[in-house]
Amino acid sequence: MTDPVFAIDPAQAGIARELYAAARDLPLLSPHGHVDPGLLADDESFGDPARLLIVPDHYVTRMLLSQGIPPDRLGVPRRDGGPVETDGRVIWRLLADNWHLFRGTPSRLWLEQTFSTVFGVEKKLSAETADEMYDEIAARLAEPAFRPRALFERFGIEVLATTEFPTDDLSRHAKLAADGWGGPGGRVISTFRPDNVVDLDRDDWAEAVARMGELAGEDTGTYAGFLEALRRRRGAFIEAGTTSSDHGHPTARTVALSPADAAALYDRALHGEATAADAEAFRGHMLLEFARMSLDDGLVMQLHPGAVRNHNKRLFAAHGADVGGDIPQATSYVDALRPLLDAYGMEPNLTVVLYTLDEQAFSRELAPLAGGYPALFLGAPWWFLDTPGAMLRFREAVTDSAGFYNTAGFVDDTRAFCSIPVRHDIARRVDAAYLASLVVQDRLPLDEAAATMADLAYHLPKRIFKIGRTA
Amino acid sequence: MTDPVFAIDPAQAGIARELYAAARDLPLLSPHGHVDPGLLADDESFGDPARLLIVPDHYVTRMLLSQGIPPDRLGVPRRDGGPVETDGRVIWRLLADNWHLFRGTPSRLWLEQTFSTVFGVEKKLSAETADEMYDEIAARLAEPAFRPRALFERFGIEVLATTEFPTDDLSRHAKLAADGWGGPGGRVISTFRPDNVVDLDRDDWAEAVARMGELAGEDTGTYAGFLEALRRRRGAFIEAGTTSSDHGHPTARTVALSPADAAALYDRALHGEATAADAEAFRGHMLLEFARMSLDDGLVMQLHPGAVRNHNKRLFAAHGADVGGDIPQATSYVDALRPLLDAYGMEPNLTVVLYTLDEQAFSRELAPLAGGYPALFLGAPWWFLDTPGAMLRFREAVTDSAGFYNTAGFVDDTRAFCSIPVRHDIARRVDAAYLASLVVQDRLPLDEAAATMADLAYHLPKRIFKIGRTA
Amino acid sequence: MTDPVFAIDPAQAGIARELYAAARDLPLLSPHGHVDPGLLADDESFGDPARLLIVPDHYVTRMLLSQGIPPDRLGVPRRDGGPVETDGRVIWRLLADNWHLFRGTPSRLWLEQTFSTVFGVEKKLSAETADEMYDEIAARLAEPAFRPRALFERFGIEVLATTEFPTDDLSRHAKLAADGWGGPGGRVISTFRPDNVVDLDRDDWAEAVARMGELAGEDTGTYAGFLEALRRRRGAFIEAGTTSSDHGHPTARTVALSPADAAALYDRALHGEATAADAEAFRGHMLLEFARMSLDDGLVMQLHPGAVRNHNKRLFAAHGADVGGDIPQATSYVDALRPLLDAYGMEPNLTVVLYTLDEQAFSRELAPLAGGYPALFLGAPWWFLDTPGAMLRFREAVTDSAGFYNTAGFVDDTRAFCSIPVRHDIARRVDAAYLASLVVQDRLPLDEAAATMADLAYHLPKRIFKIGRTA
Repeated sequence: MTDPVFAIDPAQAGIARELYAAARDLPLLSPHGHVDPGLLADDESFGDPARLLIVPDHYVTRMLLSQGIPPDRLGVPRRDGGPVETDGRVIWRLLADNWHLFRGTPSRLWLEQTFSTVFGVEKKLSAETADEMYDEIAARLAEPAFRPRALFERFGIEVLATTEFPTDDLSRHAKLAADGWGGPGGRVISTFRPDNVVDLDRDDWAEAVARMGELAGEDTGTYAGFLEALRRRRGAFIEAGTTSSDHGHPTARTVALSPADAAALYDRALHGEATAADAEAFRGHMLLEFARMSLDDGLVMQLHPGAVRNHNKRLFAAHGADVGGDIPQATSYVDALRPLLDAYGMEPNLTVVLYTLDEQAFSRELAPLAGGYPALFLGAPWWFLDTPGAMLRFREAVTDSAGFYNTAGFVDDTRAFCSIPVRHDIARRVDAAYLASLVVQDRLPLDEAAATMADLAYHLPKRIFKIGRTA
Repeated sequence: MTDPVFAIDPAQAGIARELYAAARDLPLLSPHGHVDPGLLADDESFGDPARLLIVPDHYVTRMLLSQGIPPDRLGVPRRDGGPVETDGRVIWRLLADNWHLFRGTPSRLWLEQTFSTVFGVEKKLSAETADEMYDEIAARLAEPAFRPRALFERFGIEVLATTEFPTDDLSRHAKLAADGWGGPGGRVISTFRPDNVVDLDRDDWAEAVARMGELAGEDTGTYAGFLEALRRRRGAFIEAGTTSSDHGHPTARTVALSPADAAALYDRALHGEATAADAEAFRGHMLLEFARMSLDDGLVMQLHPGAVRNHNKRLFAAHGADVGGDIPQATSYVDALRPLLDAYGMEPNLTVVLYTLDEQAFSRELAPLAGGYPALFLGAPWWFLDTPGAMLRFREAVTDSAGFYNTAGFVDDTRAFCSIPVRHDIARRVDAAYLASLVVQDRLPLDEAAATMADLAYHLPKRIFKIGRTA
Repeated sequence: MTDPVFAIDPAQAGIARELYAAARDLPLLSPHGHVDPGLLADDESFGDPARLLIVPDHYVTRMLLSQGIPPDRLGVPRRDGGPVETDGRVIWRLLADNWHLFRGTPSRLWLEQTFSTVFGVEKKLSAETADEMYDEIAARLAEPAFRPRALFERFGIEVLATTEFPTDDLSRHAKLAADGWGGPGGRVISTFRPDNVVDLDRDDWAEAVARMGELAGEDTGTYAGFLEALRRRRGAFIEAGTTSSDHGHPTARTVALSPADAAALYDRALHGEATAADAEAFRGHMLLEFARMSLDDGLVMQLHPGAVRNHNKRLFAAHGADVGGDIPQATSYVDALRPLLDAYGMEPNLTVVLYTLDEQAFSRELAPLAGGYPALFLGAPWWFLDTPGAMLRFREAVTDSAGFYNTAGFVDDTRAFCSIPVRHDIARRVDAAYLASLVVQDRLPLDEAAATMADLAYHLPKRIFKIGRTA
């Protein structure tokens, strides 16, 4: 089993190991992720190793695509229902045959650690070992100890937040609550993600708004009714344990529309007359509305801007969204967040966690903002930046202006349930390496580094994301 | 006492210590700063420790604000004259109680080094030691050896430049000159900063222009009179020892207006009819005018673009400017500087020092520009970038295209008089670490690294900023 | 002789040396460069040391210019034919006297390694040694072993690609082929660079198009004839061994014009009526045309966007292009490449190699794009980024999302024939250092690092640039 320390100097590596050891066994908090709640509600066995570890992991399938292996051959479902590879073993061998493509990547780190720490398989993946490893993992997956809830406990997860739209009826979370796994203060909670009722550019916007109205028992034919429906759905999510909302907009733009202008814009949208500029204004305006609602109901706001969705047009046409076709874009925050910050940036009772896919914003914009406004915290490096190198560059870029205590702790953001422990593990190793670099340079005493380590791994995210909040 | 070396490898750290030791005792040049000249003109005792080290340090107060501690509780004066904390000991305790927020930040480095090297206090700040440390520092501040001029000499400062508007009558510098501390070639000089008479967006622009006219004995009712008044004030500054001007514009934009267009724009401004575009054009145009004046009178031009002033609107409303509410923004130089460079970039007798808050510009734009135009030099990493990590990244980003000799040396840019020696000390340690990395990699012999070290610490800034110039 | 390893930690440096040693003697592939083919066609002695190593090296002349030494004094020819320094020894002494300016720069590394490994001169350059070194190198240059073809063989170059416009008659390559040095699969081939017939902003555009028509035997008075002429010239280049095209546009913009719109735009251009927007659209559109042609004829496309040509206006006026007056600019790819990628990004038979002068694009845009589209590969860090530090930052920035196998291998891009081996040598040392960092961190086993090393140095560029292709 590999035991990576993200430090090269032996003295730094030694201190990093010491700091990591002290945090390794702290419970895992996953306040922002994309695991299917049905997985834990139903607690059935996972499928075969390929269907668990390859097919749904778009980090893996996009790398293979980039070298000419189409998603069909990897079993990624087609929108037209056309045939794709169904033999898990064939898919697994494709990965094994192309394993060299992943040298130096986080996917390799995550998968190798998953093989060894989750499944106890210590072999190196290769064309020669592929079948044997497949069989070993498949055998494990058939055991009761490898069902989702058993793994959840073995992984040491304290709380896992899934992500649902306001149009979700939360039935799976109700099932979890009935089983003693969900509800306020419970182990599996949801995150309120209103993008589908806020983004006028979506084809299903009107339908989603209507569906939300039904669930909320509100007439969404007016802007006032739309807002009230949102408030009610937030209430329902909070009753199911939710402590935060999430907003995945193309940009960080916020806009302060007057109530009358917002209502008029909403009416245009209902009549199918909203322009692209309307859509951007409405998304930006709704962030201010959500901030107002958060001041009332306490939900933490998470902003995830900067992804160009479905950049790979042919991939989207063939296989739909969330299969590796998104690309980051340059994202600016200083002007974009001004309307929100003018209104609520100084509110000590509002918590806004900012993420980015544009690491150039870390030292220039995000750290100075988080280090200057009470409401702002910095989210962990996200998605394409969720890697040892980028996490280290994040600390180097933001600590000067924001310190450690304006950062919100690691968030795995993953669909891949079995990768949760290894992702947290690697994040903790990276923070340990960064803190060790300060210790070695005589910039932080070891006892303070150790306290900071525990804060970053556990105490800070628990407080900032209000994990365990039962009110 | 901590003795930080910004290198992790023991061999590199050893060479870094050797290089640092050779430069440690070179005199300090502070060619760009914001210390109140009255401090040295009057030479009175400093106030209490909090009023000296916390209240005016916006790096410190903004970090505390970001975690919900309002500036009122830290004694930062209100614009409305409303009550703020006045008990230095209470403010000091607030810092001590929240000292963990500063882990890993440059503020912590600067303050710890100030406690130990300026005041001889070796304790670690904490809730337990707060009162004791406060008392020790307060006791020192009451001693004659801790008056400003005594500290100036103990710090080994050779020249300190303050920064004044053209509307300043330079009376404090006159007092300093009368005492043998100022004037051409003297120890305390000024920097000519014409922003208040050049920035049409300022509320006090017209008033400032009129005031400058009075001081200069020129009628600023015409553009020609305005330019002549500027020339005269530059002359008065030069007589008081000034060797450089400073320009703090929102962007790096330069504009070549014809004299007629410039005069017409100036007239519109006098009549209160200037637009935002006029203001940007006028600022940009005046940089060309100042370059022309510099070719006559020899003042070095410093450009400090890229700060969004008073981004934190509520903070500005309550406490005014320069209390931590500014935020950097993306800044581009390649097109923006073109009019200036087309006209004067090849002039060997013009010196323009470029600064940035956007470190992404270092390798892409600033180093290629400074490495390709005789008039251009790169200023030290500034403000949010004035940190060990960012200073190291600066050297890594610019040395390839600009070498060391197109960089202008460290500039402390500080309002905090007592932090001057520690800021220079840390910059010297960082340069030593960077040079040591080249030595260890067999890219630079030790003797050349040592010569470069002394140049960066002393000889380069002395030459580039024309320190000691008496003509 | 210096033996730089771009690693500081002794364990990492040891592994880096081991990896480097295994790749050191692999043949050199130079699939993109600017060496004059006449050099190898004629195989005459080089001029004096200054004319070989200083005068044509704009990295060197721009650094000296930036410190006030004008190109005239360095022998750079003037457009007006006015007098410039002609005494090589005088020019050589100017470099020696200012050698400190190059401390820490790649130019110093390249020159020092060239002195020692190419000419066997181990002295340190200085005012004292200048004459002696000049004489030693001049003596070597007079020997037959220092003629271009002899050096080519000593350098271990397998294939060198020069770069020519479609208006070049390829006579020098015909001479090379006749001598057994050129042609398909030969040692010296060309790259097809159609910028002069595609860029409507060029003064010589119409003339170049007409000349291309003559060479191709096509009437370029129509758009269809223009395209056909391009196809024929590509064919002629391919017959001379060419395997790739190169496109040096100001931006990465691609545009999908309809055939009718493209034809109309072309007509406007022929009539001298094209606007700046037309020029940008036409350049962008032609990239799609060239992709279509590449699908037919197999040429690899190289995109080199982001240089502001002739930024230094006075330098251009006096000495023309390619003498150090270009400056990089911010370059975005995500939207710019969309039309090209929508059309051809998923084509496994198209190869597009992307370069940049804006290293901020590496982690944010280029790596995610190359890691998500089969047609895309990442070119080596280019020009201002062709340095040990920037090459290391490149690997750190792109490996997470693109791995190693979506990168295209080192490209020297140089006019300086004698610097080819040292540039490749340094690139190999840097890759060895990066791979060693993964080995030391337990992220990659040594055997896989060694295999990757050989791939990066030789096998990947050979495959991606289709080196040796004879079809």
